[in-house]
Amino acid sequence: MKNLKVVKIGGSLIDNRDELENFLINFAAIEGLKILVHGGGKQASELALELGVEVKMIDGRRFTDENTLDIISMIYAGKLNKTIVVGLQKYQCNAIGLTGADGNCVVSNKRASTPIDYGFAGDIQQVNYRFFQTLLEKNITPVLCALSHDGKGQLLNTNADTMAAAVASGLSKYYEVELNFCFDKSGVLLSADDDSSVINSLNEKLYEELFNKGAFSNGMLPKLKNAFSALKQDVKYVRLGKPEMLFDSKINHTTITL
Amino acid sequence: MKNLKVVKIGGSLIDNRDELENFLINFAAIEGLKILVHGGGKQASELALELGVEVKMIDGRRFTDENTLDIISMIYAGKLNKTIVVGLQKYQCNAIGLTGADGNCVVSNKRASTPIDYGFAGDIQQVNYRFFQTLLEKNITPVLCALSHDGKGQLLNTNADTMAAAVASGLSKYYEVELNFCFDKSGVLLSADDDSSVINSLNEKLYEELFNKGAFSNGMLPKLKNAFSALKQDVKYVRLGKPEMLFDSKINHTTITL
Repeated sequence: MKNLKVVKIGGSLIDNRDELENFLINFAAIEGLKILVHGGGKQASELALELGVEVKMIDGRRFTDENTLDIISMIYAGKLNKTIVVGLQKYQCNAIGLTGADGNCVVSNKRASTPIDYGFAGDIQQVNYRFFQTLLEKNITPVLCALSHDGKGQLLNTNADTMAAAVASGLSKYYEVELNFCFDKSGVLLSADDDSSVINSLNEKLYEELFNKGAFSNGMLPKLKNAFSALKQDVKYVRLGKPEMLFDSKINHTTITL
Repeated sequence: MKNLKVVKIGGSLIDNRDELENFLINFAAIEGLKILVHGGGKQASELALELGVEVKMIDGRRFTDENTLDIISMIYAGKLNKTIVVGLQKYQCNAIGLTGADGNCVVSNKRASTPIDYGFAGDIQQVNYRFFQTLLEKNITPVLCALSHDGKGQLLNTNADTMAAAVASGLSKYYEVELNFCFDKSGVLLSADDDSSVINSLNEKLYEELFNKGAFSNGMLPKLKNAFSALKQDVKYVRLGKPEMLFDSKINHTTITL
């Protein structure tokens, strides 16, 4: 089986033009098959503010009404996705930008509106692995933004970590998949603000011990759940850390195993 | 050689939700290979107004500064392109949304800034026919918006009619291509406001006669130039008319030949 790297980026990396360009130079240079999944950074909220669309949060999650979905579609699928694609093309990486609707590649169900109504939010049902294979075999690099669709004419806002994990899992029967969650910390930290407290290796047993002690932040928990879920679906490795971990093996990060 | 229909839509069709949905139902039902190319309608200008970005026109053409390019990228590649893709998926047409940067499929040069500076406007240099073939062979329908790129990291605003003609020409060595320009008139009209004055068949000789009489509007001339240019590059037919001409052979329209 060939190796495949699935890389998720988001947050401040996407909002900083120079940092993003630097990342894209390095990502373009990664040899072998790769897929990039990106979230949205602050730009969707900024555009919402400019257009006077209220950003509604429920338990730290965005409520996606129709106006918000339009904004997300403009920023994620339009501005950000194309900035990334055009940037990768500049560095000789033949990228293609996608939402889950394109090529019917990620199909989801609209989340039930009870007990909590998140609006147009999607829970992933199916990854069209054949479509990704078609692209990868032609040496085309998919760049997937955090939007899926329900196959009935509706785009759905979808968590980018979950999207990356689902795509990694969906392709793990055909490739040796390494799933990388890049963010602004050096990995899973024992003390939230101390970047030197990285746990280099985290398995399920240690995770449960630490979870019971309340060691993980609300931001970290979904990443870890996605990581273990992906590993149980034959993803080979999951790594968490700063983007630099992709390009330099000496950079501190967390490797997650079962 | 297999048949391929290249269809360009724009203007009021795109701005009207019901009209667009009705079009997509019919377009999805067209059998055989097809590519949809779309312009932007009024939505880019509306968003520019909302965001306080000045729309600068030069000789009836938009001047594309950096803010305008962002807006076009949000509307064309984001909102409109994804509305179309998700709509086609609903009706079992496996569509994929593209700019010219995606799969490096349409490469252009930034137009020289003299004698007139149009800003980030692109003149098409190359159509990556292999990429389109890869998709078409998998029965995936490309939906291309009016943005190309220069391969050096820059998206470029590109006339949608020209884009459709270039893609049709680029694929005409491999398919029997029919190029369709859909708009809000029934074809090339002898009197601009009289929809019953359609010229059903227009060849180069008649075009020149009528051109010398000043019979064509400024909106029609680029379409006709694109049409003849495509025919000279082995496109089989060019048709101009209302979208209904695609679905009902009895609908009045103009067929252009050399």
